[in-house]
Amino acid sequence: MARLLVKGIVFDLYGTVVDVGAVAAVCKEVAPDPVAFNTHWRAKQLEYTFLRSLMGRYRDFWKVTEEALDFTIQRFTIQVTSKQRRHLMDAWLHPTPYPEVAAALPQLKEKYLLAILSNGSRRMLLTGLDRSGIKQNFRWIMSADSVRLYKPSPKVYQIALKRMPLKKGEILFVSSNSFDVVGAKNFGFKVCWISRSGSLLDPLGPKPDLIVQNFDDLVEAI
Amino acid sequence: MARLLVKGIVFDLYGTVVDVGAVAAVCKEVAPDPVAFNTHWRAKQLEYTFLRSLMGRYRDFWKVTEEALDFTIQRFTIQVTSKQRRHLMDAWLHPTPYPEVAAALPQLKEKYLLAILSNGSRRMLLTGLDRSGIKQNFRWIMSADSVRLYKPSPKVYQIALKRMPLKKGEILFVSSNSFDVVGAKNFGFKVCWISRSGSLLDPLGPKPDLIVQNFDDLVEAI
Repeated sequence: MARLLVKGIVFDLYGTVVDVGAVAAVCKEVAPDPVAFNTHWRAKQLEYTFLRSLMGRYRDFWKVTEEALDFTIQRFTIQVTSKQRRHLMDAWLHPTPYPEVAAALPQLKEKYLLAILSNGSRRMLLTGLDRSGIKQNFRWIMSADSVRLYKPSPKVYQIALKRMPLKKGEILFVSSNSFDVVGAKNFGFKVCWISRSGSLLDPLGPKPDLIVQNFDDLVEAI
Repeated sequence: MARLLVKGIVFDLYGTVVDVGAVAAVCKEVAPDPVAFNTHWRAKQLEYTFLRSLMGRYRDFWKVTEEALDFTIQRFTIQVTSKQRRHLMDAWLHPTPYPEVAAALPQLKEKYLLAILSNGSRRMLLTGLDRSGIKQNFRWIMSADSVRLYKPSPKVYQIALKRMPLKKGEILFVSSNSFDVVGAKNFGFKVCWISRSGSLLDPLGPKPDLIVQNFDDLVEAI
């Protein structure tokens, strides 16, 4: 990675630094198949970010997550009390970092400027990172909300260039989400794909510069 | 519907006028679960139209359909010969109209100007409609390709206003696809949702003006 000469690392949050699968634990309260319920909820959440961006009808990620939840509840034809619904949404404010993240971040911080760039609303990001105990590692916490569009719009990745004192080629963008890897690469960042589960990358552009399985591998690779 | 005072009807094609489920028949050649294979292929095809539009990386619908097919083949870890791959793609050039469509269209044509507005590439639309035997009912066959963006971008729906001698409020847009119903309504068309299978509408905006189960119901309703 020395040859890539990066000075900063910008991380996606959900699914990359913190485990959105952990939301599934809360889904057990309401759904017979919590994994299927959570997978559907997450898929709809992303689809709605794409559709709202394309229609020019931005609403923040909290609201989009609620819309996706309400659709998923209807789709799975389950009964959910308002207290349970609040529990489900609150899970997004208590994200769980992947096991190796807390130890890896300080090592990366010694050599690189670290930042978060996420679709999450400002409140979701600040509250969630506060509670996760890893917030102090990031010098910038940036939300797509400031441009009222979602990834993979180039305008979202542009936020990092406006806020950080780095050039495009000096930033390594790290994500586990295929659409985000593709979008960041399309924007022109150097990109690392964290492929935790051996999932596939959508064939929509150039390959990422680096592929690792987790944060430990990332520390070792750069 | 008289109160809506529409003069023209613009139809989505795939899933609305013609059955994309029919592609599943060809999937039997290659996939143990052809319905799951086809559903995944279709979902990826749509996702790629959203992502490419958002990234500003347009490729035409034939190419996007190929990209989605290649991903789906990989995902299902099946072996597909180049002849089988050609068969699968060719299914998109032999679309099957839903059973009641051929009889309903001439009745609608007596009273309204009819058109197609589809994500499909020009070649896919012209070849497919030629073979389906229903092409003569449509005075305009319009492709998203002319603006190099996909639905639900407002610029795609705008194509109908540029080509047809009608005002926005004089057009009824008809689709079975939730994202398209939402997108057309967001653009400002009057919208009819053909809900064949009792599927759910994504809660991303105002409700459609008319909901029917098939083309027979549509003829009766307007």
